[in-house]
Amino acid sequence: MNEERREFNDTHVFQTSLVSRPALGSFPRTDFPDGIEAALTSIAPKGLKAVQTMLCGTSANENAIKTAFIWYMTNRRGGNPPDQAALDSCMVQNQPGTPKLSVLGFQGAFHGRSLCMLSVTRSKAIHKVDIPAFDWPIAKFPRYKYPLADNKAYNDAQDKECLQDVREKIAEWKKKNHDVAAVIVEPIQAEGGDNYGSPEFFKGLQKITKENGICFIVDEVQTGGGGTGDLWAHAHWNLPSPPDIVTFSKKLITGGYFYGEHMRVKQAYRIYNTWMGDPAKLFLLQKVVEVIKRDNLLEKTRDVGKFFQKELAQLQAAHSSKLSQARGLGTFAAIDFPTAAVRDKFVDKAISIGLHCGGCGDKSLRFRPSLIYEKKHAELTFDLLEKAVKQI
Amino acid sequence: MNEERREFNDTHVFQTSLVSRPALGSFPRTDFPDGIEAALTSIAPKGLKAVQTMLCGTSANENAIKTAFIWYMTNRRGGNPPDQAALDSCMVQNQPGTPKLSVLGFQGAFHGRSLCMLSVTRSKAIHKVDIPAFDWPIAKFPRYKYPLADNKAYNDAQDKECLQDVREKIAEWKKKNHDVAAVIVEPIQAEGGDNYGSPEFFKGLQKITKENGICFIVDEVQTGGGGTGDLWAHAHWNLPSPPDIVTFSKKLITGGYFYGEHMRVKQAYRIYNTWMGDPAKLFLLQKVVEVIKRDNLLEKTRDVGKFFQKELAQLQAAHSSKLSQARGLGTFAAIDFPTAAVRDKFVDKAISIGLHCGGCGDKSLRFRPSLIYEKKHAELTFDLLEKAVKQI
Repeated sequence: MNEERREFNDTHVFQTSLVSRPALGSFPRTDFPDGIEAALTSIAPKGLKAVQTMLCGTSANENAIKTAFIWYMTNRRGGNPPDQAALDSCMVQNQPGTPKLSVLGFQGAFHGRSLCMLSVTRSKAIHKVDIPAFDWPIAKFPRYKYPLADNKAYNDAQDKECLQDVREKIAEWKKKNHDVAAVIVEPIQAEGGDNYGSPEFFKGLQKITKENGICFIVDEVQTGGGGTGDLWAHAHWNLPSPPDIVTFSKKLITGGYFYGEHMRVKQAYRIYNTWMGDPAKLFLLQKVVEVIKRDNLLEKTRDVGKFFQKELAQLQAAHSSKLSQARGLGTFAAIDFPTAAVRDKFVDKAISIGLHCGGCGDKSLRFRPSLIYEKKHAELTFDLLEKAVKQI
Repeated sequence: MNEERREFNDTHVFQTSLVSRPALGSFPRTDFPDGIEAALTSIAPKGLKAVQTMLCGTSANENAIKTAFIWYMTNRRGGNPPDQAALDSCMVQNQPGTPKLSVLGFQGAFHGRSLCMLSVTRSKAIHKVDIPAFDWPIAKFPRYKYPLADNKAYNDAQDKECLQDVREKIAEWKKKNHDVAAVIVEPIQAEGGDNYGSPEFFKGLQKITKENGICFIVDEVQTGGGGTGDLWAHAHWNLPSPPDIVTFSKKLITGGYFYGEHMRVKQAYRIYNTWMGDPAKLFLLQKVVEVIKRDNLLEKTRDVGKFFQKELAQLQAAHSSKLSQARGLGTFAAIDFPTAAVRDKFVDKAISIGLHCGGCGDKSLRFRPSLIYEKKHAELTFDLLEKAVKQI
């Protein structure tokens, strides 16, 4: 196909996607599988091939959790679909059709703002106050000291303590007959203040879920898309086997989730809604993925990320009374101020001299450069950061 | 502004909306208020001016319910924002910060597929089975006999019985210290089988919510958009005052909800998420609204709707052993078959001869013509319906 012809086709596909939006679960476009292949399957996390699009991150997480519940109950029934007693009782919300199950989340986590996702979200009170919630377990998440190399014993103890807390919470909810069906976790708690877990922590967490027949959901809504130097932050962990489900949205333009074949829901209309995503967004992602590959943007992000992290450490060293905990992966980075007030004052100052930036967590400044961010942009960034730090 | 210039501007606005999607809660386009005015405020339900866009119907309903909870708790505190005890306790999901509140829904209702919305959805077991739910009250919804004029006593008794059930459920959950903060209801239970409530039923329902300080949410996700002959199905009720919240999506292209000023959430970041809607969809809706007004499509829908309902009654009269319960409003219509099996056989037959149609509820056939459906289309529809009915 020559370029001119292809351009015509692209325009046609995009325009018709926009003005004739299908109910994807029932009437997908005939070229929808091609779009899925080009935009999503081609960037799938290692070991996961199946994917379901959704409209946003919350919707991705909600449906990941529903998939986990269905999988858990199917396992409990020895692989069988729901029987008549289950179908009848769910309509009056009694057991066995409406089971008492739970999802384990972490302190500092953010997974979205629906009532279900708020039940496993613990980043800020203003998101949660006045809203009823499911009584689901929340475990401790590591809080490391940086630089990592200088604090190994402390940080290893953090991992152990948090994994032990996960084990205890799973046992506690099992005792209450509210089995934990899924664990949901971010590779980096972004909204919660850029809190990292080590590869060892996540390997340990996956091991616990496998031992207990629990679905392991990695929420890459904020980390997915290349900022960490890989399209998927969890790729940095080198897990022995893939997570059961990986959710995404934001930078990937369409929401959705990848899942292992063993998680596939076999009956129609159980994972379903009117839109099930948006082909126009999938088309935009397809173009983004083409450019990421064409321009080697992941490799470039890894390179500029190394420069960025080195500069960030130097900035901290030069202003150690004001800055601490410099941390990051690729260009995904953060640094702490003594208090929220100082951080907020810094952000105002930085914006006033031309550096767009923002906070996360209690007192952190976060960096989320795009994939076309180069060394020259980083140099400009650190000039402005230096100026702003001196003025607070 | 001449037409050429305007065309340029429209194209520019649409293109930039598509490729540069903003986080609307923080960085809306400068022309976003103009889009809201043209696409939404200009078609607001009577008495409601404030509007919030969202991505889909479920997200609209989730945020309507969150708004209701915040309003209910604010009223309980005498108008004050959450105090420190509430902010602290919500982070560990204890009272008072995480309150025990509930939402009342109805048998046969459909409000979406998130865990929260499934808790007030009772249309089909396959949507709900294996998914945990909030323990929230479900009341009876009227099931009328048609034609309405021939069954007045029976239908009036339905209204009374259902309203009494609502009162009892509210009292029961209050006794359990799980106050009902909101009632959510569809004007026509569409997914549940095209079940209508009378204007008297809805007036009575609103009265009960007012007497109990409960938020009255009308879910127009399927009914909103003009099919009933008005942009809002609840306009047919002539309520003495507007509902507190009206949610929409589907035909209105963007999701969202209108709300009364008294429902406005005063603190930032309580009703918030990454996208908060999509300006590109708002732009498409703006064009649709322009055409609805330019071509008098609501008036035309009312006219063709009268013809449609008359033809539907005649079809039923000619095939009374196979068809019953012909009902509708505008071109929004349905009819029942003796069983689901006969209905499904009919749908297969109709599609095979060129009539695209589908079922709803247990044994109903539903009609959802678009706003450009004319008498000539209706004539063609009934020719095909007649042929298909004769073949089952």
